[in-house]
Amino acid sequence: MSNTLTETPEAGVPADARADQLRALLDGPWRELRERFRAEIEPQMVLGEPGRSIEENRARVTAQLLSLAEKGYGRIGFLTQYGGEYDYGASCVLFEMQAYGDLSLTVKTGVQFGLFGGAVQRLGTQRHHAAYLEDIMTGKLLGSFAMTEEGHGSNVQRLETTLTYDVEAGDFVLHSPTPSSIKTYIGNAARDAQMAVVFAQLIVPSGSQGVHAVLVPVRDGDGNPLPGVTIGDNGPKAGLPGVDNGTFFFDHVRVPRENLLNAYGDVAEDGSYTSPIEGENKRFFTMLGTLVRGRVCVGGGAAASAKKALVIALRYGTQRRQFEAPGVEQEAVILDYLAHQRKLFPRLARSYALSFAQNELTSRLQALQGEQAHPDEQGQRELEGLVAGMKALSTWHAIDTIQTCREACGGAGYMGENELGQMRADTDVFATFEGDNTVLLQLVAKGLLTEYKETFSDLDAADLIGLITRQVGDTIVEKTAGRAGLQKLVDAVTPRNDETALDNRGWQLWMFRERADHLLETLGKRLRRATRENAFELFNNAQDHVLEAARAHIEEFILTEATTAWQSMPKGPARDLLDKVIDLYALSSIEADKAWFLEHGRLTDKRSRLVTASVNDLCQALRPEVDTLTRALGVPEQLIVAPIAQ
Amino acid sequence: MSNTLTETPEAGVPADARADQLRALLDGPWRELRERFRAEIEPQMVLGEPGRSIEENRARVTAQLLSLAEKGYGRIGFLTQYGGEYDYGASCVLFEMQAYGDLSLTVKTGVQFGLFGGAVQRLGTQRHHAAYLEDIMTGKLLGSFAMTEEGHGSNVQRLETTLTYDVEAGDFVLHSPTPSSIKTYIGNAARDAQMAVVFAQLIVPSGSQGVHAVLVPVRDGDGNPLPGVTIGDNGPKAGLPGVDNGTFFFDHVRVPRENLLNAYGDVAEDGSYTSPIEGENKRFFTMLGTLVRGRVCVGGGAAASAKKALVIALRYGTQRRQFEAPGVEQEAVILDYLAHQRKLFPRLARSYALSFAQNELTSRLQALQGEQAHPDEQGQRELEGLVAGMKALSTWHAIDTIQTCREACGGAGYMGENELGQMRADTDVFATFEGDNTVLLQLVAKGLLTEYKETFSDLDAADLIGLITRQVGDTIVEKTAGRAGLQKLVDAVTPRNDETALDNRGWQLWMFRERADHLLETLGKRLRRATRENAFELFNNAQDHVLEAARAHIEEFILTEATTAWQSMPKGPARDLLDKVIDLYALSSIEADKAWFLEHGRLTDKRSRLVTASVNDLCQALRPEVDTLTRALGVPEQLIVAPIAQ
Ligand SMILES: Cc1cc2nc3c(=O)[nH]c(=O)nc-3n(C[C@H](O)[C@H](O)[C@H](O)COP(=O)(O)OP(=O)(O)OC[C@H]3O[C@@H](n4cnc5c(N)ncnc54)[C@H](O)[C@@H]3O)c2cc1C
Ligand SMILES: Cc1cc2nc3c(=O)[nH]c(=O)nc-3n(C[C@H](O)[C@H](O)[C@H](O)COP(=O)(O)OP(=O)(O)OC[C@H]3O[C@@H](n4cnc5c(N)ncnc54)[C@H](O)[C@@H]3O)c2cc1C
Repeated sequence: MSNTLTETPEAGVPADARADQLRALLDGPWRELRERFRAEIEPQMVLGEPGRSIEENRARVTAQLLSLAEKGYGRIGFLTQYGGEYDYGASCVLFEMQAYGDLSLTVKTGVQFGLFGGAVQRLGTQRHHAAYLEDIMTGKLLGSFAMTEEGHGSNVQRLETTLTYDVEAGDFVLHSPTPSSIKTYIGNAARDAQMAVVFAQLIVPSGSQGVHAVLVPVRDGDGNPLPGVTIGDNGPKAGLPGVDNGTFFFDHVRVPRENLLNAYGDVAEDGSYTSPIEGENKRFFTMLGTLVRGRVCVGGGAAASAKKALVIALRYGTQRRQFEAPGVEQEAVILDYLAHQRKLFPRLARSYALSFAQNELTSRLQALQGEQAHPDEQGQRELEGLVAGMKALSTWHAIDTIQTCREACGGAGYMGENELGQMRADTDVFATFEGDNTVLLQLVAKGLLTEYKETFSDLDAADLIGLITRQVGDTIVEKTAGRAGLQKLVDAVTPRNDETALDNRGWQLWMFRERADHLLETLGKRLRRATRENAFELFNNAQDHVLEAARAHIEEFILTEATTAWQSMPKGPARDLLDKVIDLYALSSIEADKAWFLEHGRLTDKRSRLVTASVNDLCQALRPEVDTLTRALGVPEQLIVAPIAQ
Repeated sequence: MSNTLTETPEAGVPADARADQLRALLDGPWRELRERFRAEIEPQMVLGEPGRSIEENRARVTAQLLSLAEKGYGRIGFLTQYGGEYDYGASCVLFEMQAYGDLSLTVKTGVQFGLFGGAVQRLGTQRHHAAYLEDIMTGKLLGSFAMTEEGHGSNVQRLETTLTYDVEAGDFVLHSPTPSSIKTYIGNAARDAQMAVVFAQLIVPSGSQGVHAVLVPVRDGDGNPLPGVTIGDNGPKAGLPGVDNGTFFFDHVRVPRENLLNAYGDVAEDGSYTSPIEGENKRFFTMLGTLVRGRVCVGGGAAASAKKALVIALRYGTQRRQFEAPGVEQEAVILDYLAHQRKLFPRLARSYALSFAQNELTSRLQALQGEQAHPDEQGQRELEGLVAGMKALSTWHAIDTIQTCREACGGAGYMGENELGQMRADTDVFATFEGDNTVLLQLVAKGLLTEYKETFSDLDAADLIGLITRQVGDTIVEKTAGRAGLQKLVDAVTPRNDETALDNRGWQLWMFRERADHLLETLGKRLRRATRENAFELFNNAQDHVLEAARAHIEEFILTEATTAWQSMPKGPARDLLDKVIDLYALSSIEADKAWFLEHGRLTDKRSRLVTASVNDLCQALRPEVDTLTRALGVPEQLIVAPIAQ
């Protein structure tokens, strides 16, 4: 084990140059936007103040949203012909950057430009674009995305709100038929929304057509609810005090026929229904698929918040002293304690790895849904799986990391001025909205099991029967996780046993693949026994296996993307440093799941202990690099206002 | 694996009777006080309201504190000759019960009656008791416990505030000599305290005598700071909005000589210093030892809050439906999902086990420091170790459990009215105050390594050299963890391998002991190599091992106490149910640490997988018992106000 007291970084290349190189790599394809944001954003544009009332927070957030819109930040994701910039990936990156500021603002702009605006753009057609997009981008028209109901958040196919076409009158009747059909937790609802994209069961003379979205005016010019619309306020929450979440209840509200967002299904004046997509389920899940950006944003935003927390805790860790080393008068810097390094460095390494994976998601989203998009159904489904899984893992990473950072800053970490408390409270719900994490991981596994074949429902076990196509040793995974490119690295590793160095990237990848493949294959075998009668029980008894398989798949994706990014770097000190960071990510991930590797003969007892020793060594090896590593994250300096991190 | 859909509990004994029996057992020796609290406390006496301002919260909490005092709840921990009830253990149990209400109030009363009042009682002598105790109990005199400084929270031996005796004037000068010597995070300081127990380096003509406590008036009758005292407000925090944490800065403040809390050290008029305890360190740590109750309370309070969270989430889980089972029209109840059971049941089982261990701590505290106390230095040191470790594990359990419960309630869990958010934010700091958890676990290990011999400092590595007495196979642990009583159970288990049933309690205990012993013995061997020169490095490199050893010791204590409580029950359905609960605690704890058991040959691959399967089976087996198990926890019904838990 190496010396525990801090050493200075190796001479030669200045630390700054390495930080710059790493930052450029982490910034990825949308570096320019990130740099613009860093240069242009002033603290008061995106930060809040602790201890304010809900009303003050809401007012401040709305004002900030409007001023960001004024600077053009609202235009980034929208179609160019209506005044947008239509850089779809950039809109995700902007969300990430905004997450370094107040998360209430991040979520509020996400609702306005992402969910509400995005739904109008994606689910609507020219008539809606022409009428509304410009006002949405400028914030002149504020709106909600009203999907969730009290009775249904995860299983949105079962929404109860009805949208019934009245042939006589030539318009729709929007109605909340039961108490549990009330729309709830809806952002922008309680205070600001003038319109809402409302999801409801579409009913036409020929029958029910499943869930569709419709644009509904909800407030008049004075901000009062329109007739038939009852608006409620969700009130105080565990976090996000600046977001006005609320409820909508509709009592036979008349909505013009043209307000149906009709890209995937339309109702003619005579009440006849047409759609380019056959089948209710497929239609609904195709619609949802076009909205996948929201999940990309939520995962990326949470991960960004975790980075900021790490910068705060790591900086404090290099300054704070507590307890003296024997014979030394000055107390030791807490980041020199192995236990403290153990808390922060593996999470820092994971933050790095997640960044590369997040960049890959954003690029794939751009390729599939951006301006020059090449639609590709298989690619789209694969993306949806990765996005769902990355959203779950990134948000849990954020919750865990911010909490750890809070504790790592002792009493100071609990003070409002040091930012961590609010970040922790705000990111909490990222595990829930845009899809509950546990539900999302099941979607990942479902996609893998069916090789992204025709399966259009959330978690219906019956739906899976007969679709489970996974065969031992089949090849689809090679494509899905972008494995092919790294095959050589993996093949080069023989023997894969105690002789191979733990920092051999090929071995690490092999371990991640072994875990992912084995979990999936055994799951497939287990579930192929399903019949209509035993399906629920069989699937339910395997739920822990399902979650593990999904996790392992996403972990492999993360290591793959981190490795690919690292390989792209020119040889030199920055690459060497990143190498260690990825080692730490890979080995601490293996360490956390040691039991699996031991149980399945992929680690011997001896090697397993070595993994732990290596994690310790890597923590100590990265200790002198903390400055470079935190600077490389590129958190805008002006947005780190915590006094303990100055 | 058993059927996944809910079955009704076995016929025979009604569920209620089992719940009552279990509740009585969980209630432990201070059942009467718990029952009184359940009967007497009305919601408005101890609950807050979400969304209020800091000022409103503070005012409400102070008013509630005074009205509890009026009902006599402030008297419980104080000496009978001054109007108290002097039931020391009961004061811990009261803290637990209060933790079912607003935690700001819990902490505020903890500061007033526990920290402030407790210090006056424990560190002061008759002159202080006569002058202040009655007013403290009634809340007429509100006070602070001012130990932490900006520069020192964990390493309080290095406090910088000075208390210098002025022989000429015959009084003390209390002074904050540096910016980092400011007292901070001090409860009751910002708004209410009229006096404070201030910890400072005592300096007399013969030299510095180490840290002592002194009673200092800080505000006048109108609530204004007294001359020389600067009071600050810590402002908004991540939680505990009703606690007025603040700062004290002293500028040559004159304090009467009689205000020194002189039970462990006194200054005569002529400036001569006397103490019944030789040695600065020993004196200071003896003083701290008398204040160990604070940690007992914090651990117990956090665990109580986790129980309330579990009741909320489990109840919601039995009502909430989402996703349909194939062929069934109604959607499935979410608590029927294995993944959901996996989230909640192991934590519920751990809550049970922790309760028994907490009761044991409280009883030991009572025996060592209560009215009929039999002081016993060895017992006291052992208690301090157990309390430190239990505080760490209980508070982390609470943070993790409340967060999991929040997520398990989906969007509803994030709403202020459903209580979980505030509980989560409030308990967060329980990992930090009354001693940072990571620091506390190191104290546990230190005590074990030195067999509670003379070692009087927090974490000074040098201090340990030569003191590490642990020998392979020595006997102290038998006593420390109350092992002897269960030895028969353990001895009865042969062979200890794949043949033994996983639900064999003796085998489970054996596993816990093996882990605790092995970790400690190997640690002892490792650290005995320390010299003055390499001590810091050697200890630091072993820090992860230190933390593991401490954890394992406390886990064994927990299982031991749970087993002892279970054994005390008459045979019957309630005992059988508890048996399963303890199985789940034991097996999920083994599962969480599988890697260690595999690495060290205490589990085979095959058996290791069986452990996981058993945890799943136990979750499903406990599913129909959820009502009984939550009722048995005895959370006062009127304090569960979350709409989702009605
Ligand atoms: C602050 C906030 C803002 C929001 N903003 C919006 C918005 O603007 N627009 C909008 O439409 N919605 C919004 N939502 C709603 C959000 O999307 C939903 O809360 C989320 O989708 C989860 O749904 P639910 O709350 O109904 O949870 P549920 O679906 O009821 O889930 C509850 C629990 O059950 C578990 N569970 C469910 N199904 C299964 C299963 N099959 N297997 C195992 N476990 C299962 C979950 O893991 C979870 O722990 C918001 C919510 C919040 C809290
Ligand atoms: C809300 C609140 C209320 C409080 N109320 C009071 C009060 O009424 N009276 C009072 O006197 N105090 C009070 N405190 C102070 C509290 O007791 C301290 O914050 C606590 O003891 C931790 O000290 P610290 O903040 O200085 O953290 P530090 O000691 O600076 O710890 C910071 C980090 O360093 C790590 N660390 C430190 N030493 C080591 C080591 N040797 N090895 C590994 N890691 C290490 C810790 O694990 C922690 O993560 C309160 C604090 C808060 C937040």
